[in-house]
Amino acid sequence: MSDAVRVIPLGGAGEIGKNMYVVEHDDRMVLIDCGITFPKNDQMGVDIVLPDFSYVLERRDALEALILTHGHEDHIGAVPFLIRAVGQVPIYARRFTLALLRAKLDEHRLLEDAELVEVEYNQPLQTGPFRTEFIPLTHSTPDCAAVALETPAGTIVHTGDFGIEYAPVGGRRSDLPALARLGDRGVRLLLADSTNAEEGPTGSPLPVRDVKNELVRIFATARGRVLVTTFSSHIHRVQQVLDAAYDDGRVVALVGRSLTRNVATASNLMDPDTGRPYLSPPPGTLVRLRELEEHPRDEQVLICTGSQGEPMAALSRIARGEHNQVTIEPGDTVLYSSSTVPGNELAVNEIVNRLVRADAEFITERQNPRVHVSGHGSASDLLLMLELLRPAVFAPIHGEARHQRAHADLADAVGIGGERVHILDNGDVLEITPDAALLADRVHAGLTYVDQAGGMDVTESVLRDRRHLSDDGLVLVIARIDASDGSIAGEVEVVTRGFGSGQDEELIEETRLAVERVVAEHGDRKITEVGVLQHELHESVAALVRKRTQQRPMVLPVIVEV
Amino acid sequence: MSDAVRVIPLGGAGEIGKNMYVVEHDDRMVLIDCGITFPKNDQMGVDIVLPDFSYVLERRDALEALILTHGHEDHIGAVPFLIRAVGQVPIYARRFTLALLRAKLDEHRLLEDAELVEVEYNQPLQTGPFRTEFIPLTHSTPDCAAVALETPAGTIVHTGDFGIEYAPVGGRRSDLPALARLGDRGVRLLLADSTNAEEGPTGSPLPVRDVKNELVRIFATARGRVLVTTFSSHIHRVQQVLDAAYDDGRVVALVGRSLTRNVATASNLMDPDTGRPYLSPPPGTLVRLRELEEHPRDEQVLICTGSQGEPMAALSRIARGEHNQVTIEPGDTVLYSSSTVPGNELAVNEIVNRLVRADAEFITERQNPRVHVSGHGSASDLLLMLELLRPAVFAPIHGEARHQRAHADLADAVGIGGERVHILDNGDVLEITPDAALLADRVHAGLTYVDQAGGMDVTESVLRDRRHLSDDGLVLVIARIDASDGSIAGEVEVVTRGFGSGQDEELIEETRLAVERVVAEHGDRKITEVGVLQHELHESVAALVRKRTQQRPMVLPVIVEV
Repeated sequence: MSDAVRVIPLGGAGEIGKNMYVVEHDDRMVLIDCGITFPKNDQMGVDIVLPDFSYVLERRDALEALILTHGHEDHIGAVPFLIRAVGQVPIYARRFTLALLRAKLDEHRLLEDAELVEVEYNQPLQTGPFRTEFIPLTHSTPDCAAVALETPAGTIVHTGDFGIEYAPVGGRRSDLPALARLGDRGVRLLLADSTNAEEGPTGSPLPVRDVKNELVRIFATARGRVLVTTFSSHIHRVQQVLDAAYDDGRVVALVGRSLTRNVATASNLMDPDTGRPYLSPPPGTLVRLRELEEHPRDEQVLICTGSQGEPMAALSRIARGEHNQVTIEPGDTVLYSSSTVPGNELAVNEIVNRLVRADAEFITERQNPRVHVSGHGSASDLLLMLELLRPAVFAPIHGEARHQRAHADLADAVGIGGERVHILDNGDVLEITPDAALLADRVHAGLTYVDQAGGMDVTESVLRDRRHLSDDGLVLVIARIDASDGSIAGEVEVVTRGFGSGQDEELIEETRLAVERVVAEHGDRKITEVGVLQHELHESVAALVRKRTQQRPMVLPVIVEV
Repeated sequence: MSDAVRVIPLGGAGEIGKNMYVVEHDDRMVLIDCGITFPKNDQMGVDIVLPDFSYVLERRDALEALILTHGHEDHIGAVPFLIRAVGQVPIYARRFTLALLRAKLDEHRLLEDAELVEVEYNQPLQTGPFRTEFIPLTHSTPDCAAVALETPAGTIVHTGDFGIEYAPVGGRRSDLPALARLGDRGVRLLLADSTNAEEGPTGSPLPVRDVKNELVRIFATARGRVLVTTFSSHIHRVQQVLDAAYDDGRVVALVGRSLTRNVATASNLMDPDTGRPYLSPPPGTLVRLRELEEHPRDEQVLICTGSQGEPMAALSRIARGEHNQVTIEPGDTVLYSSSTVPGNELAVNEIVNRLVRADAEFITERQNPRVHVSGHGSASDLLLMLELLRPAVFAPIHGEARHQRAHADLADAVGIGGERVHILDNGDVLEITPDAALLADRVHAGLTYVDQAGGMDVTESVLRDRRHLSDDGLVLVIARIDASDGSIAGEVEVVTRGFGSGQDEELIEETRLAVERVVAEHGDRKITEVGVLQHELHESVAALVRKRTQQRPMVLPVIVEV
């Protein structure tokens, strides 16, 4: 039996999103994480993007376990789709991660047969062929973990997402001694989060604690209501807002479905480490939205969804004046306790301009860098991880090419360079043994587009059609053909959508004439060659429209035999 | 005769882009600037966006002059469209601005009858009803000016775009004493550039000079070829790159059509102020692209278009490996001497990742803030302008709501606040007299979408159709109806584009059945009610598709009588 272990990113390498890693040995396979990503602008009508599961599907019998490092969408969002594709598989994760996953599986009606195994920190357990240990790491959601897999090639550590917080909100610190012990015993391969590899050290040694202090300062000086927006899964930030509001004598209400649901989950779930719930609102602080009006405006705080400018989220509807319970008044303050994910800049900017027009104050990370701290560690945290683990082989993951490169440069600076570093793309097969590591192969690792959560797949050709339609619209040509002699019967109809101004009578008349000419020229051939006639009609109508308008709408000829 | 003067932004107020201001008195009208803007993501297939000219069109006889402050697209790009709409009008501008405009009018075949008046700085001349003075200001293109109009209500100053550079590349300084003299005589209304009102002072007192010094440092240490990308109209930056390359013993070639054209224009045009061309390449420095290979790779510089990630621009094609003359090799350096316009972040990021994959180094403003300086002054420049002019009335323009508000806050800090400040939106009519200023009216000031430069207008309804088609695609239903009895004849055809996976046989069969049912139920009414039948088909097919797929494609029923 070979001691070779294969590590294959199916998502998350060369990108930030849809994390999914295969670790396999001797035809036995474990997956680490199974997340989604959000579509780019030219992926039209697509709601979410999944990893392509075909590699796993083709080896279904080998799949023994799915390990989840934490509960963010880019790590667990694709689990229901994976289960639909391959059936149930044992899932290993921490309690809070499982709570979020349960809600998701329930929505997809997949909860009943799910095999969910709650994992304790620092207690190695068997996941498929590998002994696996979950090690506590801090990040912007409770119960995050690095996972260490004991394999025949040596220990493989996958950090999940992390940023070292020395005074974390949840109370559970990163277990740096446990990492150091792993390093002492020898780490064969490290896969580590590269998101903020380009960022320098943060300005404060206790940046997360500073967020709460800054919130208290802002609440104390705000003249009116304060609306705070952040990611709805950011339970620690919600805790900080609640604590700061309590200190300033304000009450807090929640706006937004996902936020309300996550806060309920976290308040009702006991953290096995601390014996307290994952979220603990100070007494009397959290009130229902309809109770808010019982308090003066300058004693109110609202936590809202919509930090990324999502058009249907709470803050967006409030800013547009379309929320039926919450309005902005002059003197209110809107505080973005979040960063803007690349691609969402214009949407957030539009909201900010609406707030300004409503005479509200706004505070983003740019006005005040202390209102948000990224959950992903910058260079100093990444160097610390490399230093504690001293891996023989290093693969920067969870980053685009630029972040992977920056992370590799950091590793090089502390003596981990050259052949020891592998910058992987999705589909790369990194084969490691106790003595060697090499890029052994490439497997298929594409994308799966999903239109409407729970709905149908979208193929590349459908996207191509949508892009075409969105650029120049559609010209529909309907020609009735006499089946007996192939001549045209009645008037040719021309219908346009998303094209022209509706007043292009001349062009429409020219199109009709072109169709009649093509049909007449085609006349001596058999009408049964409908495909050929359709092609000819397409070519001449498209050429005519292009010539007259410099536009390239989709041209659809419809031939009806009468 | 009243002494009231009306100032109306038709574009440029509450936005950055498509600047166009009306100044009118006693039925005589002057325009300041006439620019375009670029579409947002949901304005599909639109290439450029123009101001709506209808206010001007309705008062065509009143229009006496168009004044252009400088040659950027958001100030002159819509001039050809204005001339098409209203006919020729005398245009007053500086020499370099006119040179750029001439090329544009020539392309639109509008140059022949154009009345272009070249203006000297500090030499008042009559533009329509107002004596007008052009005052030199520094910005990121040659020949920028503030304009001061003497009106019956007092002097109106429009700054155009500006940032105070004390050691400008072109040599021509901002004329601060002239501004101070205007202030001494009394400025009734100031309209001033708000773009960077949110930004603090720059880090260096001579930031523009620093750019060249930084370029020299980068060239000196770069191992291979250096590719510099910047805005193609940024002649001063091109001059700095040429000078820095000369100092480092490198030759420079240009890649990109607009850049090559602008460099030719600037090299061949004599600056009336300095007696030298607007651009002066040091001897032997500027070479043709095909001559570049005669020099070692570490003695080469390329200036490329594509700083905003435009997919067809030079740098984008080079990064994709699709340029037939220029390739990236490991060790090359790509330098963004530009900032990223909001909305272009993802496109630029994609290029950077491609460069990293090709093992090139990249430097953007983020890695090195000295490689670019904005041409728009930050808070300290804006305060200086307010201080020199001390306007009685102030309207921050050339900015979104957030920038206008920040500019108003600055004015308030130096004692220009309250009733004296007007934050205008496009279409607001600010009426000023020697003693008063008030928002007197609102006029129509919409958008005009243009699909393909020189092509056709795009209406809102066309855009709505494109958005619909791009979200969920199209379902086309073709039903043949027997004209004699209204019964269905032959098989119903269902065609989809941008919708479904092509394997929805079941849904397509259901759709066919639904169509047959609707036609049968409709049977006893007259077939001549085609509109009614079409509506019924649309409703039931759309409902069916929505129910089965949760999607809302555009449904087009086609009824053919046979």
